This record gives sequence, C-alpha cells and structure tokens, in this order.
Amino acid sequence: MTQIKATNVVWHEGHVERAGREKLLGQQGCTIWLTGLPSSGKSTIGFSLEHMLLQQGRMAYVLDGDNVRHGLNKNLGFSAEDRAENIRRIGEVAKLFADAGVITITSFVSPYRADRDIVRKLHADAKPALPFFEVFVDTPVELCEERDPKGLYKKARAGEIKNFTGVSDPYEAPTNAELVLKTAGMKLEECVATLAAHLQKSGILPA
Amino acid sequence: MTQIKATNVVWHEGHVERAGREKLLGQQGCTIWLTGLPSSGKSTIGFSLEHMLLQQGRMAYVLDGDNVRHGLNKNLGFSAEDRAENIRRIGEVAKLFADAGVITITSFVSPYRADRDIVRKLHADAKPALPFFEVFVDTPVELCEERDPKGLYKKARAGEIKNFTGVSDPYEAPTNAELVLKTAGMKLEECVATLAAHLQKSGILPA
Repeated sequence: MTQIKATNVVWHEGHVERAGREKLLGQQGCTIWLTGLPSSGKSTIGFSLEHMLLQQGRMAYVLDGDNVRHGLNKNLGFSAEDRAENIRRIGEVAKLFADAGVITITSFVSPYRADRDIVRKLHADAKPALPFFEVFVDTPVELCEERDPKGLYKKARAGEIKNFTGVSDPYEAPTNAELVLKTAGMKLEECVATLAAHLQKSGILPA
Repeated sequence: MTQIKATNVVWHEGHVERAGREKLLGQQGCTIWLTGLPSSGKSTIGFSLEHMLLQQGRMAYVLDGDNVRHGLNKNLGFSAEDRAENIRRIGEVAKLFADAGVITITSFVSPYRADRDIVRKLHADAKPALPFFEVFVDTPVELCEERDPKGLYKKARAGEIKNFTGVSDPYEAPTNAELVLKTAGMKLEECVATLAAHLQKSGILPA
C-alpha cells in the first residue's frame, strides 16, 4: 500500500473538489430553504422549481418530509427537542448536497427562527461559505386552511392533531429572509419565476 | 393559490424526477459502500475514484468521517447504539444522494454486517431499487498498522483508544460483497481501475 501513500489525493482541501464539481455542473451549489405554514405551498413551489431547473439542464434536488421524515429522521417525534434535531439534521444534509454542487431545495415548515438560524450559520461556516437562501412562503393562514390538501387543518381544529403549527403551535415568521413570496393572488409560475430571478441576481443561475 | 393546485406537479412519482435527473447527468445514481479496517485505504480509494469520475464529467461525491462525523452525526458517540445509528444515518443520506442521481461513495469502517445489511436493504427497498455496491477494502491488519497515517493503531495498542476496530473491537468481513479489493501488492491506480471496471460491468458507467 506504499504506492497509495505516494499518490495520495490531497482530499482534505475539500474546496478543490467543490470547485471541480461546480465547474462540471456549470452551477454553484446552494441551499434554498423554504419555510412557511403547513399547506402554504412550499412543496409545490419547491418541486416546480426543481422541475424547471432540471429542464434547463441544472442539477437540483428537493429534500422534504416525504424523503426525510420516513427515512433519515424516522426516529424523531414532535417534541421540542426532536423538532430541533429534525431541522438540524436536514440542515446538515442540505449542506452536504450544496457542497456537492447541487441546487438544494428544502421544504419544511421549520417554524422556529432559532432552528433556521442554526442552519444558516452551518452554511456560513462552511469553507468557503455556501450560499443560503431563506425563502418565506408567506401565505395567509386562511388560505392555507382553505387549501388543506391533506385535511390536516381540519383535524387540528377538531383537536385530533396536537401542536399543529398555525393552529395550536406558533410559527415564527422570518425577519431576515432573503426572499418573501407573498403567494396570495400569485400564480405558481410567478412564485417560481420570482425565486429563479432572485437566484439569477445572486449569481447562482446565469442571467 | 387555487392556480397552484391546478398546475400541481405530480411529484409523488419520485421515479419520474429520478429518471429526469439521470438523463440530465448521463449516469445512474448508486451507492458504493467502502468498508474495511481503519487505515485500509478506503478514503484514498474513494477520493481517487471521485477524482477520476469528476475528470470524466461524472457527478460523484464522497461521504466520509470528515464531512459526516463533524456534522450530521456530531451528536453520536461510539457506543454500540450510536455506532449503529451512525451507519443508519449515513445509509439514509447515501440513499438520498443516489436518488438524486449521484455516484455516491461512502468511506466508513462500518465493522458490523448487520448495520451494512440494513443499508443494503434501504437501497433495495427504494422504488425503483437503487444500485448498491458493498466493496470490501481487504487490507491485512499488519499493513493497515504499518500505514497508520493518523497514529491510531499506535494509540490503540497503547490502550489510549478503547474499542478500536482491528485491535480491541471486531471487524466482521463481508460475506456477500459485490467486490473485494485485496489491496496488498496493488497500486492505488489498480484498485480504482478495478472498481471502475466493476461499475462499467454493472451498467453504472458506460463501457
């Protein structure tokens, strides 16, 4: 194995590999963190953005409850501690994807400012720092409740779901989001276009 | 938001997105799970393979102790329970990367057969199943100890590190690995070429 030593790849300089991946992909890895009330439209916007990016030949991936809560975080419940750990793990995974050069889109209620700020700091502390966009999907609770595709608000109002964000649990709206999407009256296409325009302005997508 | 409903992306059919990503990337996502004793050469082989793949225009990413143990799994220790949870989480993250279309390379001792089999099953159970390659980096312990770049065997022999795989803790060699790399006497280039040839044979890389 002495030969292995001799030709050892200097892999500790992770930024070299990151730069290589970004050159290959023709894009910069980043995390787009969608936050908002249940049924506010986060996943719909996230998957539409992913779809658009893929069609443009960009590498994008959505992390959401479907692929995370039933997998990586299936051993977490909904206690305050578990909720924080849920967001922390998602933040760490998003950071790995962003480091890999992927335009990473996360779709989680993530109701607490402190949890979101931890994820923001994770990205800021990467060497070099990874772009992080907190996007507030700002849909009035009345509209969320009107949509309610999974009937969760109904169950929460009936007391069948405890600690439901927007009904019995607080949602702490972002105070320093990179982008606020006031979705009321906006078409899905407008929401996605606004988000894409922001990514262009930030240099993540070519103008 | 009714417009959002109307144009809703049928995102639950994850395989459509996966197929789209794979078409875009010109490759199939998979997990290459390197397992072996400490200092057996896993990371060196893993990063060399990543390097080669990136140079060929392929999307690859290495998960290893450096980017996982200090991040996602920083709240885990080395108890039996924590070791199992460590591997479980890495397996789930590898599955997400593979689902994203990335050639995912993991570099962890992962000494227990049961833990590795759980990860294998995770990939088999994906819809559609995700290719999983258990690669045994089969380096005799004497050679590992001779390399010992971080001086860990020395510390373990001196009793300064408890539960050190290969010294005071068992390593359960794979019995059904897709590939065994008997590294003694092999050059790094040969190890990587053998691995790449196996990926070609399996249809992950073009022949």
